[in-house]
Amino acid sequence: MHIGKDAILGCEKQFRTNLINSVSGFKSASLIGTISAEGRTNLSLFSSVIHVGANPPLLGLLMRPLPGERHTYRNIRRTGCFTVNHVTEAIFRKAHQTSARYPEDVSEFDACGLSPEFSGIHTAPYVKEAAIKIGAAYREEHEIAANGTVFVVGEIVEIMIPEGMAGEDGYVDLEKAGSIAISGLDGYHSTNRIARLSYAKPGTEPKELH
Amino acid sequence: MHIGKDAILGCEKQFRTNLINSVSGFKSASLIGTISAEGRTNLSLFSSVIHVGANPPLLGLLMRPLPGERHTYRNIRRTGCFTVNHVTEAIFRKAHQTSARYPEDVSEFDACGLSPEFSGIHTAPYVKEAAIKIGAAYREEHEIAANGTVFVVGEIVEIMIPEGMAGEDGYVDLEKAGSIAISGLDGYHSTNRIARLSYAKPGTEPKELH
Repeated sequence: MHIGKDAILGCEKQFRTNLINSVSGFKSASLIGTISAEGRTNLSLFSSVIHVGANPPLLGLLMRPLPGERHTYRNIRRTGCFTVNHVTEAIFRKAHQTSARYPEDVSEFDACGLSPEFSGIHTAPYVKEAAIKIGAAYREEHEIAANGTVFVVGEIVEIMIPEGMAGEDGYVDLEKAGSIAISGLDGYHSTNRIARLSYAKPGTEPKELH
Repeated sequence: MHIGKDAILGCEKQFRTNLINSVSGFKSASLIGTISAEGRTNLSLFSSVIHVGANPPLLGLLMRPLPGERHTYRNIRRTGCFTVNHVTEAIFRKAHQTSARYPEDVSEFDACGLSPEFSGIHTAPYVKEAAIKIGAAYREEHEIAANGTVFVVGEIVEIMIPEGMAGEDGYVDLEKAGSIAISGLDGYHSTNRIARLSYAKPGTEPKELH
């Protein structure tokens, strides 16, 4: 099935939204926790968190110019911090529900039945029920001229991982920790590890790591 | 297990690389196909492809200042186009092998046993053995000041999807198409759909979509 440029631009809006949101591949499932200058907590589901670099430790996420994400963005700019909390199968329905358009004076923590938790290192709230949790400090942003979205980069300032999920080589077993993946706008997936492969070198078959 | 900023910065390089590459969550697994001005094909595995927007249809990927990715970047800038080819379980070992540092005059297609395929719409090569395939035109780039990586944005100009994988609402069943996910630097995962959930609205429980 071939879909050309004219067909993509010509298709019905919701069809195109689902299609283009799907074809980029599997995505991370993260709840971004922030707090306003007035102390109001906010929680929003993102599927655009990506690795940016290990030294300094950086991650990035794309924010869309939508009302829900505007609260998150404004809080990050005002307070300089945010948390990234991995969604698990146990909380994916609540995580999905944070994407509903709640009024500004409603915290998605309360509305969706999740518990804020604070580390003392910064003011942004973590999600108590999440597995892997990351605290990040705002570093920089880049506006995408083509559609007005903003790529925000944060520096990782602390990481919380359930006991026994990080190996001796630093690899974190996301599957064992229960982290899930997203497809499209609304598909949630658990995973099965096929293999870990050794560092690739020309002329050598990669080996499985155990 | 709590890892603070000093512990992150103080840990051994490979440990930190594995740790930080893992904690951002599951990632897409894509082979980026490009061609040089002289007609030499290039193929490189990326786990940073993300959705940027549906209208216009955009995706983005983060490129690191490494030798392998420099060929990809240079080809994209010279020719203005690239392809995104979803990795499947059938080709993940070959896909991983493209990340080995081959000399510039070696095509990873030949070295790793994958077949280039051309659509006629642009010059960049697709991977015949891949499932979902996307052709993209270079639109813009943003250098991340914190570490010198570059976020490249491309506009989707064509999409190839195996027959029967796209639903009536435009959602593409990545799992059925065999697309896989990556964790860390070297973990490959197949997926099991938990559910698709309906559009979230305040005060309403999301329903499962079938």
